[in-house]
Parts: sequence; C-alpha cells; structure tokens
Amino acid sequence: MKFTGDVYAVKEGEVVFPGEPILTIKAPLIQAQFAETALLNIINHQTLIATKSSKICRSATRGAVMEFGLRRAQAPDAGIYGARAAIIGGCSSTSNVIAGKMFSVPVAGTMAHSWIMDFDSEYEAFKAYAESYPENCLLLVDTYDTLRSGVPNAIKVFKELREKGYKPRGIRLDSGDFAYLSKKSREMLDQAGFEDAIICVSGDLDERLISSLMQQGAKIDLWGVGTKLITSEDLPALGGVYKLAAVLEKDGTMTPKIKLSDNSEKTTNPAFKNVYRLYDRDNGMAIADLITLREEEVDETKPLTIFHPIETWKKHTVENFRAEELLKPIVIKGELVYEFPALLDVRAFSLQEKEKFWEEYLRLDMPQTYKVDLSTKLHTLKIDMIDEIRSKNAKKDK
Amino acid sequence: MKFTGDVYAVKEGEVVFPGEPILTIKAPLIQAQFAETALLNIINHQTLIATKSSKICRSATRGAVMEFGLRRAQAPDAGIYGARAAIIGGCSSTSNVIAGKMFSVPVAGTMAHSWIMDFDSEYEAFKAYAESYPENCLLLVDTYDTLRSGVPNAIKVFKELREKGYKPRGIRLDSGDFAYLSKKSREMLDQAGFEDAIICVSGDLDERLISSLMQQGAKIDLWGVGTKLITSEDLPALGGVYKLAAVLEKDGTMTPKIKLSDNSEKTTNPAFKNVYRLYDRDNGMAIADLITLREEEVDETKPLTIFHPIETWKKHTVENFRAEELLKPIVIKGELVYEFPALLDVRAFSLQEKEKFWEEYLRLDMPQTYKVDLSTKLHTLKIDMIDEIRSKNAKKDK
Repeated sequence: MKFTGDVYAVKEGEVVFPGEPILTIKAPLIQAQFAETALLNIINHQTLIATKSSKICRSATRGAVMEFGLRRAQAPDAGIYGARAAIIGGCSSTSNVIAGKMFSVPVAGTMAHSWIMDFDSEYEAFKAYAESYPENCLLLVDTYDTLRSGVPNAIKVFKELREKGYKPRGIRLDSGDFAYLSKKSREMLDQAGFEDAIICVSGDLDERLISSLMQQGAKIDLWGVGTKLITSEDLPALGGVYKLAAVLEKDGTMTPKIKLSDNSEKTTNPAFKNVYRLYDRDNGMAIADLITLREEEVDETKPLTIFHPIETWKKHTVENFRAEELLKPIVIKGELVYEFPALLDVRAFSLQEKEKFWEEYLRLDMPQTYKVDLSTKLHTLKIDMIDEIRSKNAKKDK
Repeated sequence: MKFTGDVYAVKEGEVVFPGEPILTIKAPLIQAQFAETALLNIINHQTLIATKSSKICRSATRGAVMEFGLRRAQAPDAGIYGARAAIIGGCSSTSNVIAGKMFSVPVAGTMAHSWIMDFDSEYEAFKAYAESYPENCLLLVDTYDTLRSGVPNAIKVFKELREKGYKPRGIRLDSGDFAYLSKKSREMLDQAGFEDAIICVSGDLDERLISSLMQQGAKIDLWGVGTKLITSEDLPALGGVYKLAAVLEKDGTMTPKIKLSDNSEKTTNPAFKNVYRLYDRDNGMAIADLITLREEEVDETKPLTIFHPIETWKKHTVENFRAEELLKPIVIKGELVYEFPALLDVRAFSLQEKEKFWEEYLRLDMPQTYKVDLSTKLHTLKIDMIDEIRSKNAKKDK
C-alpha cells in the first residue's frame, strides 16, 4: 500500500508540550491506521529520551555529558535510537559505536574494569593502557581503592607519560561518593602538577544527582550517564496518542470528531488542526502555544483570547505577539517534501530553541506550566460537540 | 572473529535472583569482551520485562493477560522482544503481530476508538464491526459514555447477533473507574441474557491496580496491559553486570580476580563459578541458591553451611536437601549444544518453576529475601582476596 496522504509535523528538536498535536496526518483511514503504532512507538520513545537528556545536560552546568546506556537499554534498538535522542537533548557523544556511525556523531568511552583486572596489578594495567592510548589516556581509578590505589597509580603513569612528552587526559570515578572523591582526586592531581587532567564520573547519574554534585562544588569535568538516561528511569513512557480528529466527507467537507472520556485529559480536541507558537514581540520569548482549526488565520495585530483545553473557564488574552506555525509539511500527497538535517544540526536547533523559553518553564522543581491553549473557534466547537453528545445521552435516560 | 569458548547459562524462563551468576563465559578475553554489551542489553531487558509480566499475571488471579504495549515501548525492538518476555512471564497473547509471527504465540486485540469515530453513531460502528467479526465481537464501549451509550449499544448489537445465531464475545472498558463500570456493565449484560459475554479492561493497568480491582470484586474476565508492562514502569532497568572473574594462565591454572567497591554489593565474587539450587527433600520446595567454585562438588548427604555474599557474618546450615546445577551448557568450544525450546514451552517451564517457590518469596509487598549464598570455599577465597588487597593498600599508606 502506497501512502498518498499529507503529514505535517513539528521540526525535530523543537520544544513541545503535553496536549499539543505535534503531528497531523490527512490520509485514507486505512493508511493512517497502518502508520499509527510505528509513529507512536518512535515519537513517544525518542521524545521521552530527548527530554530526559535535556534535563540531564541542563543540570550539568559545567562539563559535557556522554551517553553511556546501551547495556541497560530496553533492547538494542532502544540503545541506538535512545542514543540518537540523547544527542538531540544535549549529550555531546555516545559510547554506542553503531549509533555514532549511523548518525555521524562523536563516539566516546573509557577503559573497562576488565582491562585492569586482566593484569597482575593496577599499575601494570594503567601503564599498558597509556602505551596503547598515549594521546587519550583516561584511567578508571576505582577497581581496588580510588584514593589509595587508583589515583596514586594514575599519577605515577601520568608522570611517565609526561616524561615522554604526552599530556594525560585524566581519570574516571565509577563508584563511591563523587563529591568527596572528585575533590580529593583534584587535589592529588593538582599537587602532582596535572591541573589540566580532567575528572570524569559515571555511575547512577541523573539530573538530580548532577544538580546535587554541582551544588556541593564537586570537581567534575565530564559526565558519563547511562541507565537513568537511556530508560528515562523516573518516567519510562511518554503517553502520546494518535486519534481520529475529522473525517473527510464525499462532498469535500471535513466533519470533526471527538472522543469523550471520564478522564477529562483523555477527551480529544476535534477537527483538522494547526499549532502556532506565540512570541513576545519585545523580547522574542515564547508566551504560549495555540491550537487552532486548520484553516484559521491568526491575526497578530489584535489582542487574542486563548482557552485552556480542559479547564475551559481559564482564558487569557495575549497582545503584542508574533505567531509562528509549528507544523511544517513533511509529506504532501505521498511525496516527502522535507529535507532531514544532520543529527548535530538537530541538536544545535534544539539547544537554540530552548533559549526562547523562560527558565521558569524548564526548571526541575515545580516548573511553571507553559500554556497550550485553544483558539476561540476550536474551543467553541469542542464545547458544542461535548454538549451535543451529553444531551443525546441524557435523552436516552428519560 | 569466530567464538571458540564455552557458555553456561540458566535455562530461559528459570526463576533467578539478584546477585546470581546466570551466565558464565570462558573464552579468550577479546571474544568475551565483544559479547559483553549485547548480552547485557538482551538479558537485562528481557529478564526485566518477564519479571514485570510475572508480577502482573500473578496478580490477575482471574482472567488472562494480553500484552498491549507496542506503541509505548522504548523503540520497535523493545516492543517485539518485550512481547516475547511478557509471554514468558505469563501473558497469554500479544497485540504485536510481528512478535506473534516470530515467536509463534497467539495475537489478540480489539477494536479501536477510530473505528467508532469514523461512523456517524456508535451503534452503526458496533453493527458494522459485528458484521465483520460475528464470531469474535468484542466491542469497545467508552468512546462517548460507557454506561449510557456504549453498553446499551453493545447489548443492542449483541441481541441482533444472537438472532443470527452468533454468540457475542463481550465488551472492553478502556477508561474510567473499572471497579464500578465492570460491576454495572456485568449487571446490564446479565439482565439482557449475556451472562457469557466477557468484560475486558485496558488502560494504565499494572500489578497494583489489578490486585486492587480483584480485591474490590471487579467483574473482569480479561486484561489488556500496555505501557506499565512493556516499560516495567516502576523499575525500567535491571542492573545486571558482566565482570571478569578469573584469568586462565599459560600453565592451565585459573587465577581468580576480584573488583572491590565502596558500594559493597558492587564487589564481585571471584573465580570461575557454578550455581546450584537446593531443594527441600520433603516437599520439593526451593530452599536457597548456592554459588560455588566451578570444580566444587556439593555433597547432598551432609549438612551444608552457606554464607551471605555481602553480610558475611550471616551463615546458615541446610540439611535434607537435593542440589541441582542451574548453569547448563549452551555453547561448548564455540559450538551450540543447546536446543532452544518453543516460546510457549519456555512459558510453561517458567510457570512450573515458580510453583517451587513459597508465596512468601513472590508476593508484591515485603517479599522474603530468597537466599543466594556462597559456599565455604568461595566465601573463604573472597574474604582472603579482599584482605590481601586491603593490606597491600594499607602498606602504601605507611
């Protein structure tokens, strides 16, 4: 079956919010139905991981974040496409070699515990590693005892490297109290004259622990984040849905459709729709997103009243704004019209777009809820349709 | 690179516990290293989902569980292999058509909201569905209003089906209060003479909600479980690791290796090992698992003292037991020697093995910790190796 319809979607890497139509499909029902599960799976997963990555990378106010999660990803694909999403969210590299190759992004990693354990002593293991990677010698120091064995052995090998004219890269801590160990290791490295050697940490990191380590003044220059990033551990599923919103009649008109639910956030927004982002003309910052009927024009010259999609008594008037259409044509009449950017360009776009949102919307604790509201026309249509179904059902009760 | 080593592993579907070597590899280091990430990814993921599935299926003390999670799985593979694991854990079918085909397991699903919304009325939608699937007519009743519209329309269509000589399958509830709605729907169906029509529910189910619904006497005959199963929502990663335990010397002897850690559960158990399950000779129930040195024999005729792997002062003596080796040969000298059973046979094996564990170990709340202990020889080796490294590091401090 060839797809003959139209697909509009937000650009990949764009900042999106709950309740927003980020993709619309206009196609014969059976074609749209076939695409449903694949689209939900891919978009839910990668949006989830990119969001988690964004939180983690923003909390690391100092030092880049490397994605390290493949061994704990939910199946191999989840590791590969999770790495892809992690890069979009802000990670600078991945330890996933296939993902690095597929998406042309930097691959990074350090030595393994098994390397060290294969030798008779930690010092011999470090020395052999330094001989293999003299330009990029990042030593894992927690196999036996970080401060009494690992860091002293690393310094010994670093001195030998320095004598040969190489600059050692640094050390990696993989267990223990990262705040304490990073400060102590920093002192030891500095005293030995290795002020430029970096301290990398890995092990059960997420945005909360990274924030806490930053607050404690931990001396960390590079973060390797695995399990909690690649699985979005505190929220491992995004609840995106795919709903019938309108049916094209034989005469060319669109009949809007709605699904009600006792859970009011599960009541759908009817009709073929569009989404605009409203920006403040004075400072360029995002004010709210607006869901409209597809054919509706947004008049930037007049004050605009927008409605909360569920708590419909909440309305808000916006002035002095600029409106930008978020849904871009991807496929038109079955033909791909969108040019996919390189992954690192998607990452750059995403980092740039986040700058348009006040910190209040992005912070970890009690973020302000960004408005994703309905236009007057869409709001009126929705309320009318709900009333009509309710009154039909009420009649049956009599 | 051809793999030339040996792999021993527990049989798929076997009950396993934290801290247990469920797979051992004896191979040239570089070969073992190449297998690491793939094995961790696959075993961590499928063990995790099979465990979650087991909890969910055991809590559904009445009615089968269908796996419904693909749209929320973390990437397509996670949906397919997650479905596979869900079947092993106890699910009776999956909505994932590819997984059904790949693993020869039953595929199941019901109608979608979009089917209903595509018609002018719910009744017309049900009627058309009943005409397409007269033998398997399970109607989704929550699109507009479950009790005022969905169930009455379903009953109307069921009566028409009955007149044509068909037996309707039942209804599906997908939102709202399942306890209340299932009881009310049951009454309505029974009053209309459809005592055999089943009530299926789906929507945010997990082992906790299912237990609660069972306790409330909800009238549910079939469960569709999606998001929280396919992502193991409350614990989305299993922390399985892959560690170097011994190095084969040129003279043919094995030198055991250990990795220490400030986090004591991260300290490895040294040496090439074996795992036995000890059963009570009187009732056949599992008593404890025992990790031994590879060459060690377990003497069933004498009392056996076993040691807690971390809290080493905790020891326990077992008598009147039967010991069974858990690690089976999978690959020997690079040749596959294991015959993979059909997935439904793995499921049957797993259900049967769980019967050998007291409910106290399997219950959801405060389960008793099942012992996974060390033999005297392994315990002594571990303690000696830790002491040796500690005293070497202590000497350096002087």
